[in-house]
Amino acid sequence: MKRTVFFISDGTGITAETLGHSLLAQFDGIDFEQITIPYVNNDTRALDAVSRINKAATADNAPPIVFDTIVNEDVRRILAKSNGFMIDIFSSFLKPLETALGASSSYSVGKSHSIVNNQSYDLRIDSVHFALDNDDGARTRHYDLADVILVGVSRSGKTPTCLYLALQFGVKAANYPLTDDDLDDLDLPRALKDHRSKLFGLSIEPERLAAIRTERKPNSKYASIQQCESEVRGAEAIFNRYGIPFINSTHASIEEISTMIIEAAGIKRRLA
Amino acid sequence: MKRTVFFISDGTGITAETLGHSLLAQFDGIDFEQITIPYVNNDTRALDAVSRINKAATADNAPPIVFDTIVNEDVRRILAKSNGFMIDIFSSFLKPLETALGASSSYSVGKSHSIVNNQSYDLRIDSVHFALDNDDGARTRHYDLADVILVGVSRSGKTPTCLYLALQFGVKAANYPLTDDDLDDLDLPRALKDHRSKLFGLSIEPERLAAIRTERKPNSKYASIQQCESEVRGAEAIFNRYGIPFINSTHASIEEISTMIIEAAGIKRRLA
Repeated sequence: MKRTVFFISDGTGITAETLGHSLLAQFDGIDFEQITIPYVNNDTRALDAVSRINKAATADNAPPIVFDTIVNEDVRRILAKSNGFMIDIFSSFLKPLETALGASSSYSVGKSHSIVNNQSYDLRIDSVHFALDNDDGARTRHYDLADVILVGVSRSGKTPTCLYLALQFGVKAANYPLTDDDLDDLDLPRALKDHRSKLFGLSIEPERLAAIRTERKPNSKYASIQQCESEVRGAEAIFNRYGIPFINSTHASIEEISTMIIEAAGIKRRLA
Repeated sequence: MKRTVFFISDGTGITAETLGHSLLAQFDGIDFEQITIPYVNNDTRALDAVSRINKAATADNAPPIVFDTIVNEDVRRILAKSNGFMIDIFSSFLKPLETALGASSSYSVGKSHSIVNNQSYDLRIDSVHFALDNDDGARTRHYDLADVILVGVSRSGKTPTCLYLALQFGVKAANYPLTDDDLDDLDLPRALKDHRSKLFGLSIEPERLAAIRTERKPNSKYASIQQCESEVRGAEAIFNRYGIPFINSTHASIEEISTMIIEAAGIKRRLA
């Protein structure tokens, strides 16, 4: 079965998408075609959205699901006339929240999504640049500024996790790859020994690692299951020897890996 | 006025946080202290969360707001006994969605948040590595594989935007800094001329650019308002000369810049 889903917003649509994805994940066996329409902030854009919803309704022979986070009343009124099944996220929660907080909400268009704040922008950018400058063991002299230093074998997910930690949470994350030398000696490099309390390990199932490395370098020793098994075993031995907390990233998304690290390492989120 | 807000989930908590942030942004003048408790997936973790909520209720002398995306019934029952004001995100929407879709939802713990999918993981990682390999004009020979090539002066937000496009949307984004030579000639470098249809410009107000650069290199010519004004003027002249679409990133978050680029450039999101 196929159903079309729209995420419609007067801002980026990221809130509607995020909530919608979580809800749709509860339904198996339905093939959802997902369409995001951001910046629906005037009548013309609203009418255009309605026409796309109605076209999908005809094609699917079933009402599309429409998740919206529109604040503007006029735009909402236009959308309400579509043939979609509307899930109006804001109106569901703002009234009860107003009561709980004993305060009125501002309801200004765009306000809902505008998370522009120079201070948090700067913090995220700084954290991104920190992650880039301290990626892959390139530099170790700024580790005293790091919130966390991820350690693991090549392609265990260190770099994307550091970048996600920076962008989503403003956390300064460095990463250091365990090399053949480290893995042979089952020992930590000097640069890491000085910062043991900040280390966090990433492990991964050898089969998955081999698959990831094969994408990059097919038929190489680097991507062979023997090599991957040996490296992963060595890395976990080092983690255990030095009491470094670690998680297995095999069955986790980047969001999940990042959140688990923050939680397990007790790192303070710098963006609220 | 101060109020404590909890985001509680049996997964990462990112859905609860995202929705909560959007809703709270509608309330001015309240100082929200925000606490995320992820992976609340058993009775012990649930009871611990309740105790934290109740402590905050006493300290604030007002019920904390609790946004939750818990699927497990037992955990939800425990949380319901706290002194918090509960905003139960899933239960609000799953019933109506089941009706609209004519299907039952799975309600399995963790399911809601588990967006693990090797294919989309690989796509995001590939896109992150593409952004890193093609950052800051370092390489131009893979531009045929790019979905978009961001162009702008130093510190206009190119790198973080490329990384966000990769992580959030699986979009392959390269970026190229306009140098003094380009800006003096008001001309595009050769490498970019071959890919005009993929170019997208980032502009920024000179005052904001000077502030950002000052953080990096205080009192430098690079950070001076004269230099920033001249570079921004040059960059926009090049954008206009070659009909390159561009946006002003000054008052936008990374999410907003990324979404606007996708929309304006008609880029296909590779992650649904």
